[in-house]
Amino acid sequence: MKVNNKYYRTIWMKESSVFMIEQNLLPFEFKIFESTSYIETCKAIKTMIVRGAGAIGAAAGFALAQAALETDKDNYEKYITFAKETIEATRPTARNLFTATERVYKAAKQSKHQAVKEAQKIADEDAKTSLAIGRYGNELIESGFGIETHCNAGWLAFVDHGTALAPIYLAQQSGKKIFVYVDETRPRNQGAKLTAWELQNENVPFAIIPDNAGAHLMSKGKIDIIITGADRIAGNGDTANKIGTLEKAIAAKYYGIPFYIAAPKSTFDMNCSNGKEIIIEERHPDEVLYQIGINEQNIPEKILISAPGSNAINPAFDVTPAELITGIITEKGIIKPIESVIIKLLK
Amino acid sequence: MKVNNKYYRTIWMKESSVFMIEQNLLPFEFKIFESTSYIETCKAIKTMIVRGAGAIGAAAGFALAQAALETDKDNYEKYITFAKETIEATRPTARNLFTATERVYKAAKQSKHQAVKEAQKIADEDAKTSLAIGRYGNELIESGFGIETHCNAGWLAFVDHGTALAPIYLAQQSGKKIFVYVDETRPRNQGAKLTAWELQNENVPFAIIPDNAGAHLMSKGKIDIIITGADRIAGNGDTANKIGTLEKAIAAKYYGIPFYIAAPKSTFDMNCSNGKEIIIEERHPDEVLYQIGINEQNIPEKILISAPGSNAINPAFDVTPAELITGIITEKGIIKPIESVIIKLLK
Repeated sequence: MKVNNKYYRTIWMKESSVFMIEQNLLPFEFKIFESTSYIETCKAIKTMIVRGAGAIGAAAGFALAQAALETDKDNYEKYITFAKETIEATRPTARNLFTATERVYKAAKQSKHQAVKEAQKIADEDAKTSLAIGRYGNELIESGFGIETHCNAGWLAFVDHGTALAPIYLAQQSGKKIFVYVDETRPRNQGAKLTAWELQNENVPFAIIPDNAGAHLMSKGKIDIIITGADRIAGNGDTANKIGTLEKAIAAKYYGIPFYIAAPKSTFDMNCSNGKEIIIEERHPDEVLYQIGINEQNIPEKILISAPGSNAINPAFDVTPAELITGIITEKGIIKPIESVIIKLLK
Repeated sequence: MKVNNKYYRTIWMKESSVFMIEQNLLPFEFKIFESTSYIETCKAIKTMIVRGAGAIGAAAGFALAQAALETDKDNYEKYITFAKETIEATRPTARNLFTATERVYKAAKQSKHQAVKEAQKIADEDAKTSLAIGRYGNELIESGFGIETHCNAGWLAFVDHGTALAPIYLAQQSGKKIFVYVDETRPRNQGAKLTAWELQNENVPFAIIPDNAGAHLMSKGKIDIIITGADRIAGNGDTANKIGTLEKAIAAKYYGIPFYIAAPKSTFDMNCSNGKEIIIEERHPDEVLYQIGINEQNIPEKILISAPGSNAINPAFDVTPAELITGIITEKGIIKPIESVIIKLLK
């Protein structure tokens, strides 16, 4: 995708270096981070220089390819085995990370060249998957549509294109007139910070809205479709995504507005038969009580935005029941959130 | 109500001075502002040192009483007439303000003493009305209840007790075990700032939640009742209140949770037959794009919390249709949001 009118991927490898957009600095500063060793790439994953399911998978693959390039013949197998374990320890809940390390590890056993090739393939596949989601999703969008999205399921979370935002980019590129309502997505404001930044760079018309304004805009007929990403989809179609997704889905149902999830096949977790089995991470109350941004001198600052001494509850995700989801946009097409259909998709 | 364990009203008059809690400094600093002239009280209304329907009404009444005390015999009628107009120009959309100035103006024509007496009466009536709302609302609350509230309809917006929070205070005082989930209420965070501050001072157990977390907590069975205030109630029961109220009402309906509005009779506007006629104020985008709080040095600071150069949409209110409202808690009892019932209430 474009940044300042130049084409970028979120992460890429050139010779033995991995380059990535420094996401901790966004949207206030755009900077490319160069990692020259697999250990540095591990640190980048850990400190969230790179974030998002697809991008983390690519980073893990590239890291193991770096490890393969770093070692000599005698230590090779030992070195890449240790590297694999180190990489897998960076973000142990990221499923894409393990798929990537397994694949590159297998390739690395053949040769260094194969390791790099496989890592590149993983990144390319991620971009291709997102593009396919974008193409299917674009079919749902008509010119003149108002589109609401929650959090950031854009290209920054993948290698390119993204999931929920991919259909929006494709719609824009195909000349449709659209307007995007970006939920700011408290408490971490990924909508106001990352999605808004992406849309700006792609010249898509948009406005940030307080999360509170969603139903109001729906009641006024401003929203024609809602598209969000997913963190995990259970076997019956129940979908875990960023906190607040559920409220949008309920309001969409009330107003008869189509509500879509955009996610690659890898997001489905058949070990979870339904949403009740998904454990919701509770994050630190300070994310709610404080807010991070830049002050008038452009210096990052953290301020208290609530009554001093208050406590907060900060669930990271919620689960939207399948009955509220119109469809799931995958790289293989748009499906209904029904168990039998999901099983067929994953076959 | 209590602040640091001492009894306070939001606003009161003593001799020719009007005292009020400096609400612009809350929750970070607690300070009493003393206004020694009606012009100063007008400024306090304008700069929102005092805010909220009931408190503004009381402030306006006190201001006109101050004016009556300030002038001599010869200029009396001219002075108080001019003062009335000046007071009414401070917040021309606040309906309670006009009711108060009319009443005190009439009394002032009899004597200075009558003007002060009438202004005091208006403040006392406001406190009594809130207390009555609290008593009726308390009947809905059982021990063990989780209660969600939106924005600040507490005593700071009235002379004492508040509307949506009055039932909570009464429940707490009557020994019921309750827990309050306080919607932070973006973009201006009146929940996190003012409601949290009030509950802290009254020792009511609570947690601030991101507005996004409401439906999630409902889905987990944490919320037994939702009570919010109202800015205006149409003749058919449709209710305008702080942006985001509508989302809570829709989610409450989906989960079968009772959703109540707490408001005095003066909130009903029979000139509005239904919610569609209520014009929604659009506020400045900067309220969404920036956030105000205090930094680590306890100094107030405004920071940018979104992608630089973004636009935002910032509707101040939304309208909850009557069909989503379980009941309206008034000082005359709890009523259904049905036109015929409302007409009977207001008779």
